[in-house]
Amino acid sequence: MTSETTGWDNPLRDPRDRRLPRIAGPSGLVIFGVTGDLSRKKLMPAVYDLANRGLLPPGFSLVGFARRDWADQDFAQVVHDAVREHARTEFREEVWQQLSEGMRFIPGDFDDDTAFEQLRETVDELDTARGTSGNYAFYLSVPPGMFPKVVRQLKKHGLADAPEGSWRRAVIEKPFGRDLASARELNAVVHDVFDPEQVFRIDHYLGKETVQNILALRFANTMFEPIWNRSFVDHVQITMAEDIGIGGRAGYYDGIGSARDVIQNHLLQLMALTAMEEPAAFDAASLLTEKLKVLKAVKLPGDLGRHTVRGQYAAAWQGGERVPGYLDEDGIDPESRTDTYAAVRLNVDNRRWAGVPFYLRTGKRLGRRVTEIAVVLQRAPHSPFDSTATKELGENAIVIRVQPDEGVTVRFGSKVPGTSMEIRDVSMDFAYGESFTESSPEAYERLILDVLLGDANLFPRPQEVEESWRILDPVEEHWDRHGRPARYASGSWGPEEADEMLARDGRSWRRP
Amino acid sequence: MTSETTGWDNPLRDPRDRRLPRIAGPSGLVIFGVTGDLSRKKLMPAVYDLANRGLLPPGFSLVGFARRDWADQDFAQVVHDAVREHARTEFREEVWQQLSEGMRFIPGDFDDDTAFEQLRETVDELDTARGTSGNYAFYLSVPPGMFPKVVRQLKKHGLADAPEGSWRRAVIEKPFGRDLASARELNAVVHDVFDPEQVFRIDHYLGKETVQNILALRFANTMFEPIWNRSFVDHVQITMAEDIGIGGRAGYYDGIGSARDVIQNHLLQLMALTAMEEPAAFDAASLLTEKLKVLKAVKLPGDLGRHTVRGQYAAAWQGGERVPGYLDEDGIDPESRTDTYAAVRLNVDNRRWAGVPFYLRTGKRLGRRVTEIAVVLQRAPHSPFDSTATKELGENAIVIRVQPDEGVTVRFGSKVPGTSMEIRDVSMDFAYGESFTESSPEAYERLILDVLLGDANLFPRPQEVEESWRILDPVEEHWDRHGRPARYASGSWGPEEADEMLARDGRSWRRP
Repeated sequence: MTSETTGWDNPLRDPRDRRLPRIAGPSGLVIFGVTGDLSRKKLMPAVYDLANRGLLPPGFSLVGFARRDWADQDFAQVVHDAVREHARTEFREEVWQQLSEGMRFIPGDFDDDTAFEQLRETVDELDTARGTSGNYAFYLSVPPGMFPKVVRQLKKHGLADAPEGSWRRAVIEKPFGRDLASARELNAVVHDVFDPEQVFRIDHYLGKETVQNILALRFANTMFEPIWNRSFVDHVQITMAEDIGIGGRAGYYDGIGSARDVIQNHLLQLMALTAMEEPAAFDAASLLTEKLKVLKAVKLPGDLGRHTVRGQYAAAWQGGERVPGYLDEDGIDPESRTDTYAAVRLNVDNRRWAGVPFYLRTGKRLGRRVTEIAVVLQRAPHSPFDSTATKELGENAIVIRVQPDEGVTVRFGSKVPGTSMEIRDVSMDFAYGESFTESSPEAYERLILDVLLGDANLFPRPQEVEESWRILDPVEEHWDRHGRPARYASGSWGPEEADEMLARDGRSWRRP
Repeated sequence: MTSETTGWDNPLRDPRDRRLPRIAGPSGLVIFGVTGDLSRKKLMPAVYDLANRGLLPPGFSLVGFARRDWADQDFAQVVHDAVREHARTEFREEVWQQLSEGMRFIPGDFDDDTAFEQLRETVDELDTARGTSGNYAFYLSVPPGMFPKVVRQLKKHGLADAPEGSWRRAVIEKPFGRDLASARELNAVVHDVFDPEQVFRIDHYLGKETVQNILALRFANTMFEPIWNRSFVDHVQITMAEDIGIGGRAGYYDGIGSARDVIQNHLLQLMALTAMEEPAAFDAASLLTEKLKVLKAVKLPGDLGRHTVRGQYAAAWQGGERVPGYLDEDGIDPESRTDTYAAVRLNVDNRRWAGVPFYLRTGKRLGRRVTEIAVVLQRAPHSPFDSTATKELGENAIVIRVQPDEGVTVRFGSKVPGTSMEIRDVSMDFAYGESFTESSPEAYERLILDVLLGDANLFPRPQEVEESWRILDPVEEHWDRHGRPARYASGSWGPEEADEMLARDGRSWRRP
């Protein structure tokens, strides 16, 4: 391992000094829906881990807002417990002490004007007491139906408008609507209060190291980009598989399904990063330009019956345990047609990718938990070595392993040791865990820090969200009109129909 | 690891049945110089290992010829001891029994007509007793000065001429001359007796798995060939480093030196395989055509003083031991100018490689034993991520590790985990030992089997030998006229002058 390092562009830092860690300036974070799972398991630990790594300012403040009868110290205790349980870095009393002094709690519900007034006073108080300088991010960890109410209250109580020289930002979590129409409506409501550059949409996949590494792999190297096009790539497979079922999320999940839950955001974002042209610069506007160009070039196949598949997991033995089928899960309508598996073929109608299908699939209760991007190269053209056996040889592939076992795998043919000339597919791996002593920050650490720094590189913009729904809507409409999801056994790799879908194209899914 | 396998072309086998091992037909091997080190350590064990793997015919016969007063059973005992000590596969009594029954010994020296008559009779006897069908390979494991005498004796006693329907072949070991003139002379003598296709020149490097894998890597895959040219490659480094000194080889080595001993054969062959165009077929004639095209395109730089370096190892502590300098070795002239280190820059004047230097180096008493081919790619063109730091990033490289740790390494830039966008060079590896359960045959196993099969793919042809001397001669002449070898400490990576030679080109040697 060499130690040459290179800092990439960050407009907030002196360009001559690229190795300094990026540190947030004076600021505070207000979390709505602070009693939820996301807040406890991800946001609170991420805030602590950032503080522990010295990336938050000394006066950083954290304000919780929820319908609980808590005092500040009760809230601090909740955060404390969440940090002890879920933080990635070790617990240090002095870090905790400093952080917890900046914790405040506002009890109330989202209709409660008094509570929002109290929030405004708290923010002012913290500006004085902790030096947060009027810089606040509002994290809406609330059901999407609540978004309009909360942003309107923020506006009504003057919290959305930044005092001169300071900033206010809003952070929202998916789902960003359930189709193009509702996404536009949501964007309209939010942008009625906040300017587009004030709004940060979280797609936590984009905070993952391996996802950011797609850009490094492609554009900081010479060796991949020359073959990253229709001349050499046969097709691309993007997979996000979960081995678990819907757990306690029936209320959210039923009627939404896997395509809306995963393909519309995570997989289309991974696809955009994989397929996009080199951006003019590594900044949010340049990235948006290129990702949007890809999404706009995405075309659905004409025959959606042949090129899309949806499924529902059925009861089966999985990992030594009898697991229920989707329709037997608590809270699920036994007649539900919601997809827990979805696969679609997309085409990208541009010069780089014409004729190269992108296969996207996601599902619950699949063989194992894995997210990966596989760029599968064409077979070597008829080689000088063999006249009959080319078809037996696998294809070269470059696989970006997003999770788990983060890294990159390259698969290629090599000579089998022996006195004859046989070729067999082998692979070589680069593993994050083995190659770096630095541990990967949680996606939420990275993304919260980016919000505080105003760095929008890793956040999908409203145009991308809308383009993604433009792509997915006809698929959902087709499914609504035609039949029911295919059944697949829990623990399998999805319905047979998905295998047939690729077989018709002369291809097969990877078993990752 | 997948199990798809593909047999490559072998004209001796049914093309529909490519997975059968290649098995030699009825035949025998005659070794001249059977008392030497090579014979005992490599040839005898290789014969046994081939037999043990079932790749020799049941009646295979082995005839030794040397100036010893041995009976057949004495010779068999010598082979037995060599096999027990050096064979790669386990000793099996029944294999040994069958093999040893075909062993004969002819006492005599190379002037001895009676001995050669006896050899002829032995060959006839074995044809009857063992069914060798008149098929014989004569392995000349003798000093090059003896070649003319032995081949003339073979001719004189009718051994070089194959009876109708059978074959006779001659196997010769390097050195194939010491310059172009002497190589031509040697070729003339040999070809006066044997047709060119009867002569097999052994360069044992070409029998190594990793060397044969160069062709598989390049031409059975899609991903490497598109970048394997001047548009993407900055330069190529081919290294064969030894950590040992000359050992007991002073008599052979002094006056020859490292360039003649290694660059002329091994390294220029590795270079030809690395640089050549795709052959029309995987047969000896097509490979010769392409390798020869590369060698003919090789041009020396105009200023040999700037672009070549030779060195001599000096006494030093190496591996906890005080080792003598070359000039202090037993049997070495204290005024010797023989090079124990040599580095040359070669250019390949063709469309694929114009402007891409190939740096070849070899040496004794270097840091460690390693042979590798490193194809170093150009840096990424000015990337969108960084405006100042591109120079700090390493170059992508594809490294074929010939020995030890046989395999392939790819070096590329990856994002360093953390909340900023830093790039660092990482590598991914494919290791033969980890990827295949099949063990690699010794180079000599492969090559002896090829001789018996008449497969000349892995043997340099006389034209290649002569082209290689055409390349090296001016370098040797330059060195003869200019000064003395530079000194370098044993255990180092060669003389400072070698580092300066690359530094002048803005490059540096890999530390493999």
